[in-house]
Amino acid sequence: MAGSWARLTESSAAVRFIDTNLRGSGQVMLQDNPLTGLLFLIGIGWSAFVSGSPQLAIGVLVGLVVATCTAIGLGVDRTSLRSGLFGYNGMLVGMALSIYLTANPLLWAYVVFGAGISVVVMLAMVNVAKTWSIPVLTAPFVLTTWLMLLGSYNFTAISLADVPPPALPSTHAIASAMPLDSLALVNAALFGVSQVFFIGNAITGVIFLLALLVSSRWAAAYALAGSVLAIAVAQTLGANSDGIAAGLVGFSPVLTAIAIGTMFDTPRPRVVFYVAAATIFTVITQAALNSALMPLGIPVLTAPFVAVTWLFLLPLRKLVL
Amino acid sequence: MAGSWARLTESSAAVRFIDTNLRGSGQVMLQDNPLTGLLFLIGIGWSAFVSGSPQLAIGVLVGLVVATCTAIGLGVDRTSLRSGLFGYNGMLVGMALSIYLTANPLLWAYVVFGAGISVVVMLAMVNVAKTWSIPVLTAPFVLTTWLMLLGSYNFTAISLADVPPPALPSTHAIASAMPLDSLALVNAALFGVSQVFFIGNAITGVIFLLALLVSSRWAAAYALAGSVLAIAVAQTLGANSDGIAAGLVGFSPVLTAIAIGTMFDTPRPRVVFYVAAATIFTVITQAALNSALMPLGIPVLTAPFVAVTWLFLLPLRKLVL
Amino acid sequence: MAGSWARLTESSAAVRFIDTNLRGSGQVMLQDNPLTGLLFLIGIGWSAFVSGSPQLAIGVLVGLVVATCTAIGLGVDRTSLRSGLFGYNGMLVGMALSIYLTANPLLWAYVVFGAGISVVVMLAMVNVAKTWSIPVLTAPFVLTTWLMLLGSYNFTAISLADVPPPALPSTHAIASAMPLDSLALVNAALFGVSQVFFIGNAITGVIFLLALLVSSRWAAAYALAGSVLAIAVAQTLGANSDGIAAGLVGFSPVLTAIAIGTMFDTPRPRVVFYVAAATIFTVITQAALNSALMPLGIPVLTAPFVAVTWLFLLPLRKLVL
Repeated sequence: MAGSWARLTESSAAVRFIDTNLRGSGQVMLQDNPLTGLLFLIGIGWSAFVSGSPQLAIGVLVGLVVATCTAIGLGVDRTSLRSGLFGYNGMLVGMALSIYLTANPLLWAYVVFGAGISVVVMLAMVNVAKTWSIPVLTAPFVLTTWLMLLGSYNFTAISLADVPPPALPSTHAIASAMPLDSLALVNAALFGVSQVFFIGNAITGVIFLLALLVSSRWAAAYALAGSVLAIAVAQTLGANSDGIAAGLVGFSPVLTAIAIGTMFDTPRPRVVFYVAAATIFTVITQAALNSALMPLGIPVLTAPFVAVTWLFLLPLRKLVL
Repeated sequence: MAGSWARLTESSAAVRFIDTNLRGSGQVMLQDNPLTGLLFLIGIGWSAFVSGSPQLAIGVLVGLVVATCTAIGLGVDRTSLRSGLFGYNGMLVGMALSIYLTANPLLWAYVVFGAGISVVVMLAMVNVAKTWSIPVLTAPFVLTTWLMLLGSYNFTAISLADVPPPALPSTHAIASAMPLDSLALVNAALFGVSQVFFIGNAITGVIFLLALLVSSRWAAAYALAGSVLAIAVAQTLGANSDGIAAGLVGFSPVLTAIAIGTMFDTPRPRVVFYVAAATIFTVITQAALNSALMPLGIPVLTAPFVAVTWLFLLPLRKLVL
Repeated sequence: MAGSWARLTESSAAVRFIDTNLRGSGQVMLQDNPLTGLLFLIGIGWSAFVSGSPQLAIGVLVGLVVATCTAIGLGVDRTSLRSGLFGYNGMLVGMALSIYLTANPLLWAYVVFGAGISVVVMLAMVNVAKTWSIPVLTAPFVLTTWLMLLGSYNFTAISLADVPPPALPSTHAIASAMPLDSLALVNAALFGVSQVFFIGNAITGVIFLLALLVSSRWAAAYALAGSVLAIAVAQTLGANSDGIAAGLVGFSPVLTAIAIGTMFDTPRPRVVFYVAAATIFTVITQAALNSALMPLGIPVLTAPFVAVTWLFLLPLRKLVL
């Protein structure tokens, strides 16, 4: 089936365009695989359906397609384009803006503009990051979304919907740090995977793990292990149990585990140790950035994943793991 | 006349020094042209005269001359020096410090020190930025001024004058977002140009546009178009109308439009589209940095211009526009 | 004696390990010298003893040894390792975490983890910084410690001990800016040196100066001169006299003076001028970062030293001083 799809992408420009977009979706978790991307979209669609928020699915599709079209229009490198590298940031920008901002006609113009900008930011960051042979990961999404959300504080026609108001960090902010029961833990582990797309839904989490599995069994294994490890670390350090239960400590560590883990052929003990250290540090970095961004009233998004993965990828050429 | 001035700069060290400083002034809007620089100084002098604030004109001149002398003393590259590349940051540092800090004898020592430091910061940033063949723009000015203003919160002998006190961003901060009448719009467009030098004065705006015109008609056209587009975008997004009327949404977009636009020989449709996107994103980025710096009680200066122009210059080698 | 120690390090792996750790200690003030490192540890031990806080000495030793062992385990470059370049950041992380966080069993796990992470961050930053041939200085320590302290705001099992709570910067925060008497000034100058290791103790300051003297007389001279100059600048600008008396304005300038000054063979007048400018700018940058980090409730650590030293090292290849 994969073979006939590949043939179709060669003969039909329309199928090729769809394939490029699906790969863009898959690249959110670093998979250059159209089936993975399709399953991601199905998982998102399921969540949008059961939660009655079509806005979310629309934001995702608009962001993805606009970003891909912008990249084509700008005449970017064809190999990168076809791998979906110019779609995933726009997809995430579209999703984040349609979640954190109130829906109105201007919002959709804002989403279209942001998805287009994400391509320029991607090109700029790739140019800088290639100096050290590292990928830019979701940094273009994070930067673009932060600026567009922060900017909205000064715009009456664009309103923040679902963000806690700016406040100074406080050690008294933690409502409760209690152990979770078994069911809550299983849910939390699945939510950690689904929250990569801002979704707290166990079925979506399962679909996302399947989506990874069809592309790479190690990617799926690292994702699940990363989510579980993040929960264990957060519980040990006494993080807010509501946040743990909602999967909010897991989504960046999940991505870190996939990104670092799949750099290696096989998970040898030393590799597992290195990936685990990166995953644990992502939990701490996420808590840190939560504090750092609290006065600005914007979410950390996947910045902890980006920062820690860069820190752990940059030394790799010098190490023998 | 330009020819005889050029001969004078070769025969007289004093004229050459003046020429270097005038080019430094012109480089604030990226023009290596002594007449442009002279007209900028005249525009600033006019505003200082009518507003009765000679401090401003003194700060500009001290900053410009001290920076140029520091660069000569450090033995920097002669071609860059003669193009004014070591004057413009010091000039802006001198202007910003003398506007945002209360005048006293120590302030002038602070201005002299800051203008000198701007040359070191320029050399440092040029060394880093040349890795990707991009100009540092006004980044040395922004970094130096931010540090010196932020530091002053901890110094009793140096006092902040004209900066709103630190506060958390709030969506209720926008006093009013109302449409402006025609006269206010024309003024706002000219203020957007004059605010590059922290000045809200229509005649100064006209003098600045003339200053650009004598160097490059496209620079002047992009400056005016950037200012108008910034107003249109800010109105559409519902930004504070007082800020729009004062030209405060325009000065960074004006610089972005000049910097990106004049990278190309002719303003083909695709180029205009690219420049417009950069200009619009500068408006959003400026709003974002306004929010981000609010808790620190320092102004954004031209940081939005620097950030967005870098993002749009970095991809250029990979694109065919 | 130095010769027989050198022979011992060649014949005994245990002595070599100790030597590596002592050089790691010495590298906190940029000295690749085991005796300097030993004297630093003695100075720290003395302060921990008289202030009755063994936690501090334990944190330092644990951080230093764990970082060195992590570097060995990761198989880093042997020359850098033996120069102590993988020990000093871990040592400072161990010290900072054990000072700013409340002691409990989990803290020590946090210290061990942080010291290990500092090695990865070091490797990552070295990879980036070598593009411009500059050293990373204490940047890995600063980044790692900031993230781990900021993160602790969200962890109930790790508590901040000795940090002022988050607040917005205010010009009214300065308790008093009064001249210090002679004894206070001498103490402040010595405290400025000892505060490099978070210690306000004159005898420790003297031991640290001796430690520098056995490695490089210019390093010792620049350290003392940097501390004195920082006090003079802070008094002139009207900084808080309590902070000056406690040596808190001096520790970053001390490091800047050593780092820039010892780049040159001899302190010619132009070199002294350049080093003095860097030292003065470090005082201002420290005040600036104090304001910038106030809303986050974390200390500036040696970030001002790192930032200003980078700014003054980057231009050096282009200048003839």
